[in-house]
Parts: sequence; C-alpha cells; structure tokens
Amino acid sequence: MSESSLVFGMHAVRSLLLRSPQRVRRLLVGAQREDPRIRELLQLAQQGAVKVERVDAKSIDARVGNVVHQGVVADVEPLPPWHEDELIAALLGAKDPLVLVLDGVQDPHNLGACLRTADACGALAVVVPKDRAASLNATVRKVAAGAADTTPIATVTNLARSLKLLKEAGLWIVGADMTGEKLAWEADLRGPMALVLGSEGDGLRDLTRKTCDFLVRLPQAGTVESLNVSVACGMLLHEAMRQRAAV
Amino acid sequence: MSESSLVFGMHAVRSLLLRSPQRVRRLLVGAQREDPRIRELLQLAQQGAVKVERVDAKSIDARVGNVVHQGVVADVEPLPPWHEDELIAALLGAKDPLVLVLDGVQDPHNLGACLRTADACGALAVVVPKDRAASLNATVRKVAAGAADTTPIATVTNLARSLKLLKEAGLWIVGADMTGEKLAWEADLRGPMALVLGSEGDGLRDLTRKTCDFLVRLPQAGTVESLNVSVACGMLLHEAMRQRAAV
Repeated sequence: MSESSLVFGMHAVRSLLLRSPQRVRRLLVGAQREDPRIRELLQLAQQGAVKVERVDAKSIDARVGNVVHQGVVADVEPLPPWHEDELIAALLGAKDPLVLVLDGVQDPHNLGACLRTADACGALAVVVPKDRAASLNATVRKVAAGAADTTPIATVTNLARSLKLLKEAGLWIVGADMTGEKLAWEADLRGPMALVLGSEGDGLRDLTRKTCDFLVRLPQAGTVESLNVSVACGMLLHEAMRQRAAV
Repeated sequence: MSESSLVFGMHAVRSLLLRSPQRVRRLLVGAQREDPRIRELLQLAQQGAVKVERVDAKSIDARVGNVVHQGVVADVEPLPPWHEDELIAALLGAKDPLVLVLDGVQDPHNLGACLRTADACGALAVVVPKDRAASLNATVRKVAAGAADTTPIATVTNLARSLKLLKEAGLWIVGADMTGEKLAWEADLRGPMALVLGSEGDGLRDLTRKTCDFLVRLPQAGTVESLNVSVACGMLLHEAMRQRAAV
C-alpha cells in the first residue's frame, strides 16, 4: 500500500464511500471503534463491496501521522488529474463555481496545504501548470491530508490559455498581487470565479497578471514582505466563502 | 553569521533600521542596487552606525533562499523571547491589541508560517507554551521570513494561567475549535483579543478550551477533517483584521 492514496477521518471516508466506493481498495478501522457512525460506515462499505480490516489504532497512527484520523483510513485509487476539457465540462454544470489556480507553487508542503484548503473551502478544482508546479508526490498528498484524492486537480500546459477558457466559461479571473488596488475584503468575490496565486518567490507572472480581470491584495500590517502562499490561499478562499455565505 | 538572524526585504529592513538599529549587526545590499529607496536605507544605516556591505545579488539568494529579498538583507541580533510580565506590560500600552496564542504547534514549518502571518496581520505578540511548541530554531526563523525577529514571542510555562492574566488585562480569549457555535465571520473579533489555536493533531487542550470566553470555527465545506494550523491562523487573523478595518 503506498502512502500516496490514503484518505482518513470519518467525514472524508464517509463521503468517499458515498460518492465513489469503487475507488476504495480497502477500509481500515480501529479495533476499538464501535458506535453508530462507525456502523453506518461499515454498512456503506458493505453496500459498495469494499473490503474492511480491523486494525490496531497505533498502526493507523503510523500510517497517516499526526492528524485527526478518528480510527478510520481508506486506501484509495488515486484521483487521476483532470484535463482542461474535463475542467471546463465540470464548470458548466456548477453554480457559482470557485476554482483555485496556482501559478508556480513549487514547494510540496505549500501545494499540499493549498489543496487541503481548497477542499475545506469548497473549491470545485485546483488548476496547476504542468511545468511550474510541484509534482503530486507522496509529500504533497500527505500534507493535503486526503484532499488530493477528493478535490480534482487539473494540470494544464498553457496557463494563460486556460485562464482565457475559464473566462469564456463565465468566470471572473482574480489575481492575488501586492499591487492590487483593493484589499480582498473590499472586492466582490462572489459569483463564478477563479482565484489565482503566484509562486512563493516571484508572485504572479506578467502574462498571468495581465490575464486577470482584477487584482486584490492581502494585508501587510507588519514588516515581512509577503505571506506564505498557502496562508494567502487560506485568507483569500475564506474571504470568498464569507462573502458567498452572506449572499 | 548564523541563518537564525536574517531580516530581508526593503520594508522589513527599513523598519528595523528605524526602530532598533542597535540590533542590526550589518546590512548586506546587492551590488547593483542604486535608487532613492536604497539611498534612504543607506542613510538610515549611517545614522544608526550600521556597517554596510555591498554583495553579489546571488550571494543574497544563497543566504535567504527563494523569497522576495529585494537585494537587501540585515544580519540582526535575535530578538530575545518575552517573559509573561513583558507581554502584560506591552498590552497595557496598546489599543485593541491582538495576540496570537499557539497551544502546541510542534511543526517548525507551521510555527514559522504562523509567526509570519502574525506579523503581516499586526499581532502585538505570539504566545507559545515552553513545553508544547517547536523550539525557535533555524527552520522556524527561515520560514518566518524575518518575522521571528520583528514580532515578539512570549514563551510561558503555564498557558492556562497566562490566558487568565490576559483576561485580567482586558482581552477576550477566543479559541478556534470545530465545536465553536459560530463561524469566525459570525463572531465579533474586534477589541482587545487573544486568538488561540491548538496543535495540528489534537486541537485545543481541554483546559485551554475551558479558559476561552468563546469558540469560533472555520469552514469545512469539503471532506478533509481539519485545516493546516498555519492556514487556520491566516484565516482567523485575516478575518479579525477585516472586522477591525470596518470599524
């Protein structure tokens, strides 16, 4: 079993068993766990013909590390990356889709944290350029805490072209950039939208910046020049969610 | 020169030279840099009797890594951690202080990212328990991108007692916890306040949770059980800033 395909925690595993049981190779459940939520999970597993193994809680710790797994881990078929056309097709059926675009996040910890945040904030998909992103390796998947296997990742060869396609599909393209005229909370982040973040060192590339409909900036009250990209991603997606919830 | 004491970027270095030139051992400036902002920096260095060295831009890259350093790096005397009484004293002189409390962030990358975020969001200080936090090592300082040398860190031996002292000093104690009744954006995060985040795996300890005046939660639209702690920290501090800016 490779570490690259573990989804854990009651909520994540339940959702997987409901939506795509065929992707679950087997389900590991802590030997001590016996309660209504677990019984529902075991029933879902049975309905989906998923093999269940009872294991020692410590062996789950050893597999997934210091995270909230709640004694439940699924070994899943990794989610294959989307092609551009799959992304566009998914957008057409979605109401006010929110897409996260990462223009050159090279650090696997940051990419993993961004995927996890995209999942928590209900992003439809994450778009990364093929040649300017960390590869979806074991570190990314581990930091993503299962999100790499639940939130689709679209890898594209020409990011500027993909952004134009997103625009044609009706999305606003909003870049995070310290030259942005408005702060994120001053801008309207509702409606169909792609939020674009640049690389850790250099931010958005010129061509990417020019393709954006508008730019927003994040607070810099202190003395440090820029925020960690996964933190910036969290601030932006959280603000977008807040505005959408207030509609 | 140890890596543990580098502050970089125009804004961070300028602020250091203005506020505490005595802490700057020497200033490294890229050989090519020659413009009004640099001239002001050199003047500040002269006024503060700070030694300046012109160096190759690549040697700056090598020192600080993939960050926006703008050809300016200061080698500084590390900021000594605050004691509890220094923290309380600082609070008394501050208007609506915002304090970040990290109850057991063990991962140096997460601690560093939290420090950087605290700096960007104007937190007065960061409080960590002595025995339940990553030590302020080179990794933390590097990820913090200089914030460990600009934002004071108070290390305390008994966190519950310190939280009570903060309460007596007039701060609201607000914990981030998935059992929180309100979402962060539904709660009032203005006024003097300590925002408390728990450890990556276990969240807030029971005693810490009970000491909080109220709890707020962050969105979990997706399937993953919890957010990366530095991302959660960014969302909370950003939301607090938003509300304070709107006053």
